[in-house]
Amino acid sequence: MSEVRYFRSEDLGDFAKRIFSTTGMSAEHAGQIANGLVRANLRGIDSHGVSRIPMYLERLRVGLVNPRPDIKIKHVAGAVSEVDGDNAMGFIPSHVAMDEAIRLASQSGIGLVGVHRSTHFGMGALYALQAIDAGYISMIFTNSSPAIAMWGGRSAFLGASPIAAGIPAGKHPPYVMDMAMTVIARGKIRLAAMRGESIAEGLALDVDGNTTTDASKAFEGVCLPFGGVKGSVLATLMDLMSGTLTGANHAGDVKSLYFDHSEPQNVGHLFFAIKPDLFMSLSDFEGRMDEYYGRIKSMPRAAGVDEVMMPGEPEQRREDQRRRTGIPVTDNVISDLIAEGTRVNVLFPEGEPKAFTEAA
Amino acid sequence: MSEVRYFRSEDLGDFAKRIFSTTGMSAEHAGQIANGLVRANLRGIDSHGVSRIPMYLERLRVGLVNPRPDIKIKHVAGAVSEVDGDNAMGFIPSHVAMDEAIRLASQSGIGLVGVHRSTHFGMGALYALQAIDAGYISMIFTNSSPAIAMWGGRSAFLGASPIAAGIPAGKHPPYVMDMAMTVIARGKIRLAAMRGESIAEGLALDVDGNTTTDASKAFEGVCLPFGGVKGSVLATLMDLMSGTLTGANHAGDVKSLYFDHSEPQNVGHLFFAIKPDLFMSLSDFEGRMDEYYGRIKSMPRAAGVDEVMMPGEPEQRREDQRRRTGIPVTDNVISDLIAEGTRVNVLFPEGEPKAFTEAA
Repeated sequence: MSEVRYFRSEDLGDFAKRIFSTTGMSAEHAGQIANGLVRANLRGIDSHGVSRIPMYLERLRVGLVNPRPDIKIKHVAGAVSEVDGDNAMGFIPSHVAMDEAIRLASQSGIGLVGVHRSTHFGMGALYALQAIDAGYISMIFTNSSPAIAMWGGRSAFLGASPIAAGIPAGKHPPYVMDMAMTVIARGKIRLAAMRGESIAEGLALDVDGNTTTDASKAFEGVCLPFGGVKGSVLATLMDLMSGTLTGANHAGDVKSLYFDHSEPQNVGHLFFAIKPDLFMSLSDFEGRMDEYYGRIKSMPRAAGVDEVMMPGEPEQRREDQRRRTGIPVTDNVISDLIAEGTRVNVLFPEGEPKAFTEAA
Repeated sequence: MSEVRYFRSEDLGDFAKRIFSTTGMSAEHAGQIANGLVRANLRGIDSHGVSRIPMYLERLRVGLVNPRPDIKIKHVAGAVSEVDGDNAMGFIPSHVAMDEAIRLASQSGIGLVGVHRSTHFGMGALYALQAIDAGYISMIFTNSSPAIAMWGGRSAFLGASPIAAGIPAGKHPPYVMDMAMTVIARGKIRLAAMRGESIAEGLALDVDGNTTTDASKAFEGVCLPFGGVKGSVLATLMDLMSGTLTGANHAGDVKSLYFDHSEPQNVGHLFFAIKPDLFMSLSDFEGRMDEYYGRIKSMPRAAGVDEVMMPGEPEQRREDQRRRTGIPVTDNVISDLIAEGTRVNVLFPEGEPKAFTEAA
């Protein structure tokens, strides 16, 4: 195991915002990306946090990602709009698209926004949280670079293509889900590779199609879908809906974030927003969500389980905790970020060797 | 293994229509249910075919299902409607709801219909096929009676709650998916129990929470979600969206089709329809679907795989085949159907001991 240091979320966010600002993007966009990355770290999804900064900066440097995008929204049907991401950092058109989906849903009950010419949009839950903040139910589909074999194939074709969704609640935590179609997220394999850790059997194949526990070989190879054929079928849905339908790249054409600098990714996303009070009053809906939560808490538990949780609740608790204790960052990620900062004269924060305060 | 006999789909459909007509329902409704059941058999989803007839008839007899429903459609927002199923056989309000979702989508690009006071709606793919016939993309969510434990729980709480979806294509077969949140469909466990077959390890727990390969014990117990926590999180989404949102029963309240005659099920469903030509012309969209299909067919295949298929393609081929060879029905299902027919003076067809013609 590598060593970690602890950082206040504000300090990591400030570093991220300043370093992205050196690429020529607006302070607003840099701040939005920084917030998205740090939010992932706060929620414990370190695979989608600040460890990605060097990769994003590299793609901006070589011109694959546009730091000054002209994001265009086009209303294409009563409850549907299209967003052209202009090869921006995916966070930017995705926040625009979810806002537009919410606007459409406020008028029509449901709103759908298709995005093309986007790039990796970070943690999918970001957009579910954005919709929850506005009081809306959401679903978020995306495609991504080939990482898993289609059922019956032996080469990477489908993306890890996460699906995310959020449902606001009443006085209890909302439902938030965000899951890749791989057995574990590709980002987690990458993090294990960076940490020099091995991975469990059955998660991935190497480039020759053999199972491997070597995280580096797995990251270069093919992830296995979760749930066998079912995960493969869901991942196909993500690609068809996010890519084929929207006009973005699809069917294996989305280029790797890490290994392919030949052209912009042209990732596609699909954002659904739904009003929660379509079929009853908002207070009745919130009451039903809270009733659901109550039943989860009182159900008989499996051996070794202290508490059954609503999906998203563990991440929310992690966020509450990390806002107090700071965010742990491993020293190889720290070295990379110091090096990136040095290139452009942005100082990486010092951090602390221990958590700021221990969790209550 | 039990013996089988082969039946023409028209003969099974005619039997089903006539026997449902004896319950007092309209010929139109009886025909719609019969078509839905036989379509499942044709596609090889025998767990959702005519073997269910005795259960459905029993629920109609005891008054839990309404043979003369007054299905009400209410337009609740620009692109959203609500359907009150009036405790009908779920097939009936579900076809109405998908039609309404398509109508809304034809106007607004996307349409959403929530259904409450419904019952088991058969094979979810029926409604995806209905939308494909009309040229629309669809997603179908439903909840169902408790069959799997929520992650961390040890009692049945979430339903097998299938998700289904369909995407029309050009000259090649469409994408059609329909999958339960269990490792295998509960209906398949039930069929194995009826056939006296055992099931594989790791699919289900018995009522005491132990793993079992006894299909009868498994059917009384708890199915495991596919993909571990991911299947559980998806099943929770199905219940929250189909039940909590629509106002139907939720959170473990949907009563068992087989074991609980205390009250109507009040199942909830959610139907999405989406125009395929929102972001490009229809011919461009169809061309992209066909390009996708072409890439699937030419990709490197895993060992032992002759052909990689689009989801839904194996079922479509099965349907083509069974329309020629007849539908195989096992003799215990035949005995049950003969007995049901005898009660109400409807003759079950003779069938043949062999397939009518062998597949080409």
